[in-house]
Amino acid sequence: MEEGIVIVGGGFGGLAAAKALDRAGVPYLLLDARNHHLFQPLLYQVATGFLEAPAIAYPLRPLLRKGRFLLARVEGVDLKGRRLLLEGGEALPYRHLIVATGSRPHDLGVLGVGEHALFLKTLEDALKIRNRLLKVLEEAAWGQKSLRFVVVGGGPTGVELSGALAEFLRYVLPRDFPEIPGTEVHLLEAGPRLLPAFRPGLSAYALKALSGLGVRVALQAQVDRVEKGGVVLKDGTFFPADLVLWAVGVRGNPLPGLPQDPRGRVPTDPYLRLPDHPEVYVVGDVNGLGLPGVAPVALQQGAWAAHNLLRTLKGEAPLPFRYRDRGQLAVIGRNKAVAELGRLAFAGFPAWLLWALVHVRELIGFRNRLLVLLSWALAYFFREPGVRVLWGRP
Amino acid sequence: MEEGIVIVGGGFGGLAAAKALDRAGVPYLLLDARNHHLFQPLLYQVATGFLEAPAIAYPLRPLLRKGRFLLARVEGVDLKGRRLLLEGGEALPYRHLIVATGSRPHDLGVLGVGEHALFLKTLEDALKIRNRLLKVLEEAAWGQKSLRFVVVGGGPTGVELSGALAEFLRYVLPRDFPEIPGTEVHLLEAGPRLLPAFRPGLSAYALKALSGLGVRVALQAQVDRVEKGGVVLKDGTFFPADLVLWAVGVRGNPLPGLPQDPRGRVPTDPYLRLPDHPEVYVVGDVNGLGLPGVAPVALQQGAWAAHNLLRTLKGEAPLPFRYRDRGQLAVIGRNKAVAELGRLAFAGFPAWLLWALVHVRELIGFRNRLLVLLSWALAYFFREPGVRVLWGRP
Repeated sequence: MEEGIVIVGGGFGGLAAAKALDRAGVPYLLLDARNHHLFQPLLYQVATGFLEAPAIAYPLRPLLRKGRFLLARVEGVDLKGRRLLLEGGEALPYRHLIVATGSRPHDLGVLGVGEHALFLKTLEDALKIRNRLLKVLEEAAWGQKSLRFVVVGGGPTGVELSGALAEFLRYVLPRDFPEIPGTEVHLLEAGPRLLPAFRPGLSAYALKALSGLGVRVALQAQVDRVEKGGVVLKDGTFFPADLVLWAVGVRGNPLPGLPQDPRGRVPTDPYLRLPDHPEVYVVGDVNGLGLPGVAPVALQQGAWAAHNLLRTLKGEAPLPFRYRDRGQLAVIGRNKAVAELGRLAFAGFPAWLLWALVHVRELIGFRNRLLVLLSWALAYFFREPGVRVLWGRP
Repeated sequence: MEEGIVIVGGGFGGLAAAKALDRAGVPYLLLDARNHHLFQPLLYQVATGFLEAPAIAYPLRPLLRKGRFLLARVEGVDLKGRRLLLEGGEALPYRHLIVATGSRPHDLGVLGVGEHALFLKTLEDALKIRNRLLKVLEEAAWGQKSLRFVVVGGGPTGVELSGALAEFLRYVLPRDFPEIPGTEVHLLEAGPRLLPAFRPGLSAYALKALSGLGVRVALQAQVDRVEKGGVVLKDGTFFPADLVLWAVGVRGNPLPGLPQDPRGRVPTDPYLRLPDHPEVYVVGDVNGLGLPGVAPVALQQGAWAAHNLLRTLKGEAPLPFRYRDRGQLAVIGRNKAVAELGRLAFAGFPAWLLWALVHVRELIGFRNRLLVLLSWALAYFFREPGVRVLWGRP
């Protein structure tokens, strides 16, 4: 059977499109290889034990009012035949398609990243990092040796991850691992300042706040390659590391069969459609209009694509996408964050409070909001990352 | 270096021994292949999505006051040489040893159990069951076909698991999987009644309560083999099943090198020691004195072994173990449980409330208690198992 409207991907973009269709009372089918929406902005807190994984994941089915859901991996799209190719060989014809397949980590061509560094993109990635972190701590405790962690990338993810890692170590080490003589967290940024998308004053604040947490920041530190025991910079400097976290570089994750630019993003017209296939919309991180790969862009594009689709169904002309930039936030640690809202820029506790409120508000589901608030309150008052369970066979 | 007192296993037995040594101010080393204590009595709620895994696991390190911890898998014991053989080839000499290695699932010699049924013993087992459950629901929804679940074993685990499964389906199906025409949950018990360790009146109550939840109970149903598509009874009856859960049969999990009986349990003297090696204590599920493999026995034996060890260190004679049976509880579902406390036997809401209180009280850690209470409250009032995240590559 042919499906009318098909959405591929249940992230911020796909879900925003689904909700717009729900509101219009128009049926659709949403496909995802996972059964849940993942709130990626808090993934680094799962990796560092401050949140349990289910707190930032919400099942997709109960979120779709007018839509049906299919758990399936889409292996490609046949644009001419207007059908999706599913894993297992099935084909699914569509009339209208919204592609919201997001992005995936990228090694930026640096040797050794895939083998010796860990990414942070999926729930499984976050648990893998947490497991490796707990494992190296156990080994270091038994051998009574020091540990070094290296985070690569001074953007929001790298700053959040290194800050959370430093707080994790500060809280957990004295009580649980007194045998470990010392730990170091290094943050390597290729450019001249942290958080390059923010104003220089906020970059300076982030640098100071991270240093206060004990993170050693190296600027202009361009990584040449990652090896088993550490990271080698282009200038030859070697950073020994027991764990390397790669928090820089993503590329679009387009469906095979779609045109793409060198960054893996799909070029669209201003209406978010493929120029030659106006029945196909592309939204979020995988859209090639050049906007940053952040949740607000995906949310707005998803809804916009759905509205344009609904307009064309009614015989109206689509409208060119216009991004409403409401500003940006990045968190460094307890009581420490930076905020940029239009002309307003501020840092410290007010920015941290705003960050916390925005993130709890954007989370999906009463239960998840409650769990996150509770976990944060406990971590805040007891200075303890609550989730320190090492999985699987050690 | 030689270790004075070594405890192998951080379950109920090992942890009770550790706490007794803590109280006496005597140092020890605790070894476990996992970094956490697992509260197994609530594992079936993780398997059915009512609790997240971290809520019933607590890291061992912060629990040990006078003890050190080593994350290691013990592959055997050399009784004559008084040393433990660790994975990787290392040997760890000891002066006194407390073995608390618990039990593991056992197929009871039934063909096909290992290949076609799922066990419930570890956190990974619970997540595997939850994943498989969510996966078969997705497949059935897409194919619009009915589903059958078979739980084997009418003891507490089988009763709890089939009851929770029935409640999961009752809550989740109408809202999330309206495409599925129907589901059946079958509980197979080889004997003439459910919960054979309880009084007949409570068995009858459990049967009635489970039936009220829609579970179809088959008594005198002896399983001959498990096949890909279902379970075959000794009398030839075939129960088709999309998922088979094996909730019957455990055997002791002794360290290689210890004497064991046919059920994998280690025979000890009344003081919980190996007859030929009084420096080795064996407690909990792996102890061969013939007591049931439940948490209260392990807790009491762990503490008792530690006290006997402390007595011998002081030159006093050890005391023979005496089990203080405080009664037993089993839960069937929301507001439904059975309780047997000495001469007192009751069922229904009071038993359920007692069960809930006892379990929250026995949980370790303020955070876990709060998480479990919160999850239960949400599930109770919203009739929704909160954790429905399908992991990994579908």
